[in-house]
Amino acid sequence: MNNHNYGIVIHGGAGTILRSEMTDEKEAKYQSALSEAIEAGYAALQSGATAVDAVTKAIVSLENCPLFNAGKGSVFNSKGEHEMDASIMDGRTLHAGAVAAVKNIKNPIRLSQLVLSHSDHVLLVGDGAVVFGEDYNIAKEEDAYFYDQYRYEQWQKVKDTDKFQLDHSKDKKYLGTVGAVALDSHGNLAAGTSTGGMTNKKYGRIGDSALIGAGTYANNMTCAISCTGSGEYFMRAVTAYDISCLMEYKGLSLDAAAKKAIIDKLTALGGDGGIIGIDKEGNISMPFNCEGMYRAYQNQNGKAVLIYK
Amino acid sequence: MNNHNYGIVIHGGAGTILRSEMTDEKEAKYQSALSEAIEAGYAALQSGATAVDAVTKAIVSLENCPLFNAGKGSVFNSKGEHEMDASIMDGRTLHAGAVAAVKNIKNPIRLSQLVLSHSDHVLLVGDGAVVFGEDYNIAKEEDAYFYDQYRYEQWQKVKDTDKFQLDHSKDKKYLGTVGAVALDSHGNLAAGTSTGGMTNKKYGRIGDSALIGAGTYANNMTCAISCTGSGEYFMRAVTAYDISCLMEYKGLSLDAAAKKAIIDKLTALGGDGGIIGIDKEGNISMPFNCEGMYRAYQNQNGKAVLIYK
Repeated sequence: MNNHNYGIVIHGGAGTILRSEMTDEKEAKYQSALSEAIEAGYAALQSGATAVDAVTKAIVSLENCPLFNAGKGSVFNSKGEHEMDASIMDGRTLHAGAVAAVKNIKNPIRLSQLVLSHSDHVLLVGDGAVVFGEDYNIAKEEDAYFYDQYRYEQWQKVKDTDKFQLDHSKDKKYLGTVGAVALDSHGNLAAGTSTGGMTNKKYGRIGDSALIGAGTYANNMTCAISCTGSGEYFMRAVTAYDISCLMEYKGLSLDAAAKKAIIDKLTALGGDGGIIGIDKEGNISMPFNCEGMYRAYQNQNGKAVLIYK
Repeated sequence: MNNHNYGIVIHGGAGTILRSEMTDEKEAKYQSALSEAIEAGYAALQSGATAVDAVTKAIVSLENCPLFNAGKGSVFNSKGEHEMDASIMDGRTLHAGAVAAVKNIKNPIRLSQLVLSHSDHVLLVGDGAVVFGEDYNIAKEEDAYFYDQYRYEQWQKVKDTDKFQLDHSKDKKYLGTVGAVALDSHGNLAAGTSTGGMTNKKYGRIGDSALIGAGTYANNMTCAISCTGSGEYFMRAVTAYDISCLMEYKGLSLDAAAKKAIIDKLTALGGDGGIIGIDKEGNISMPFNCEGMYRAYQNQNGKAVLIYK
């Protein structure tokens, strides 16, 4: 336990999250779920766990909550299935693991951690990823586990159209993803991201949450980043790695680099969303260019749970 | 036709390509195939085609040749199938298209170009990508088209083992991929990559060739890059975008940036392979850290076809 600046940051998605449309009850539920997840991750760090383990614990907590579009709360694709993506990266070794379009996996972030630890590959998709996980006794769930009345109604509204939606709230966008980044007491960084994709998605679309450099990146030399938003823009801008490059090659601080990537570059490209980041000194940054982002952080200075700007 | 520095560079994979193991006849076949592909791309540039079209034409030529591990020459996966990945990026718009684990598509690079032009998504995988292409009458071929006696024997040697190989030549590595980068007469850059994956691959592995930022990247501000080699290392290092960042943020030349990414960083991480790159002035770079890389370029100064160091 050398590093006393250890800390963790999480997000539960970003988008058109308006105070005027939120009820007290709904807001309390989100606050409570975020609080539970950040405490799970921070408790791990306090007991000396690695950043990879803390990130995984926090994301598992978010995946198990039906409020967020990941794990149990995943949206329905065009076939009425739940296809999930996740990725994780260890900033100490630059090893990474990712899975995409996996079905019936309780915690896709755990499957991506198995890929990181036990595979020579970085990205596995579909049934192949599930078969790989079964070799390591990954926890599976029946379709019913992922059923949620609200998600089902979202899908029913668009299922016979060509529309796909990152998440549904009338014409408002909520870009559903969960993620976590951490600096552990050993001075190591890690980042992870998990998502249930887009309502009514077709064509085997894979978004940034499964892609190292786009939605997830960690490097002990610079920072750990997890993105949430309109994934295709993050893929084209290679956003997570871009923030690391702006720090390493241009000497920017985490906050300046993150704001440049989101407020300037993502906005100019036409994308919506935000990122969470932590650097090797424990500094954190959470910029987004939309109305709100479910987010929380905890470190030696305390804990905060936030939704709006 | 403003820009007279237009040019194109292609590769057909890198690895343990030793002069001592090459016959004159085999070498002549590779030279001829590379020559045909570079001429197809350069002729397109001469007639005013966009960089995206020239890159596509050159890669189609390589995909149609059984010598290279892409398209017709794709290796067998663990099920005896041919699963292919490809990606393309337009440096003018930063739009990109990519497909992974697609079967029975004659020219995966054309499918990735359809994703670039006609989809809101960037990356489509498996049957979904094929269904998307069928909407645009993508050319398909039966399994027999992809059958090659040499590839079949490669697979037979390892099929009942857990071994997978990027391409097979005893214990030698040939990292089979094809790619092209171009600067067109309008001053625009583009990059594309295509591969048949690894012999005996399992688990729905996706490599860097399908991933924007890892195996393929283009940006008119900096450069166009296509990678070939041990894909997982390129994914963890986000190699193609790293070269662009080293130019944009650190002010390095294309050649200095490409050498830093391959000779220094990829080698330090333990990866093998190389890249081809062209910048907005038409400068080219083709570094690799292994014995050979099938490669060629053509511009106003002439044409060259190269294999060894």
